[in-house]
Amino acid sequence: MITLFYAPNTCSLASHIALEEAGADYEARRVDFAANAQRSPDYLAVNPKGRVPALVTERGVLTETPAILAFIAQSFPHKALAPLDDPFAFAELQAFNAYICATLHVAHAHGRRGARWADDPAAHEAMRRKVPESVGACFELIENGMLRGPWVMGEAYSVADPYLFTVAQWMEGDGVDPARFPRVIDHRNRMMERPAVARAVAAATAA
Amino acid sequence: MITLFYAPNTCSLASHIALEEAGADYEARRVDFAANAQRSPDYLAVNPKGRVPALVTERGVLTETPAILAFIAQSFPHKALAPLDDPFAFAELQAFNAYICATLHVAHAHGRRGARWADDPAAHEAMRRKVPESVGACFELIENGMLRGPWVMGEAYSVADPYLFTVAQWMEGDGVDPARFPRVIDHRNRMMERPAVARAVAAATAA
Repeated sequence: MITLFYAPNTCSLASHIALEEAGADYEARRVDFAANAQRSPDYLAVNPKGRVPALVTERGVLTETPAILAFIAQSFPHKALAPLDDPFAFAELQAFNAYICATLHVAHAHGRRGARWADDPAAHEAMRRKVPESVGACFELIENGMLRGPWVMGEAYSVADPYLFTVAQWMEGDGVDPARFPRVIDHRNRMMERPAVARAVAAATAA
Repeated sequence: MITLFYAPNTCSLASHIALEEAGADYEARRVDFAANAQRSPDYLAVNPKGRVPALVTERGVLTETPAILAFIAQSFPHKALAPLDDPFAFAELQAFNAYICATLHVAHAHGRRGARWADDPAAHEAMRRKVPESVGACFELIENGMLRGPWVMGEAYSVADPYLFTVAQWMEGDGVDPARFPRVIDHRNRMMERPAVARAVAAATAA
């Protein structure tokens, strides 16, 4: 049995969807960010980073979305959620996921999590002002090349798709006009038609 | 033939070392950051992100250090640079690399690349002031758990080691006192004793 620690409106949704797509036997446990539970001793014992997602397996705990997504794909090879027998194609998928993790998600985080990188409230405000531009620049690259269509990596659905879907949920909140990115929005809409995605979204947003 | 686009004092050193460890047949091509060559049309045609590293293979271009490191490990399986037959252990390695990429490297980048996340010079200065603390916090987690010893993942050397070595080079420049992190520094010193590391460091810093 696998346990996913998640929080609504966070990147843990990508792992949540991937577990649903894989047909994994798992339990989802919500971490109450409003109560700052991610910094509680109990949760820090699971994940010393104090973040979600964390995936508790019988072998131990895994963190970091790109690592968890590749793990789910490799653990359920018959679901074909990644090109597991082709190191180059697998690396292309991983490069996409690394970009979401280290560039797009980081740009997004400057809207609310500026205290990670500066102490001055005026600096946090300056960071917030830049989010539409910096997140928008990420979606430009995705719209104009990285998203091959119909799925992120082309004809084959993969664990890159839940990750793009997850961060594309944040676009309007980040002040980025979705009309600039019709291919990303089309992808977002088609994702919602997948039963696994709908199940994960419902579970991740339930009270 | 593989071509690695690199620049001195950047995270491309990790891929450079991994290629040396793998015994890969490759050419290293320097991108002149002082001349802003990473934003030149020629280089943007290789990597539209305008960053290093980029690895040009006969199948196409790969970017993002964690993706390139896993690709090198998978392309030279006899070199045993990752636990390729164990999805959980592979995910642990990938989680380490994702943390370096998306948290430690990002914290470091706020020292010089604040313009990515704010336009206000006062905000850049506020970001610079926080770097010793935020980078130091990353090394705390590494020193006190993530670095298992003697190598990052334990007894087996892997592509996580060149990545830790690369970012540990930046510690002093980031205002982080190395005396706080004896295990990381011991790792850094032992890495320099490896011929592949010494070759890559020499090549990456040559004029």
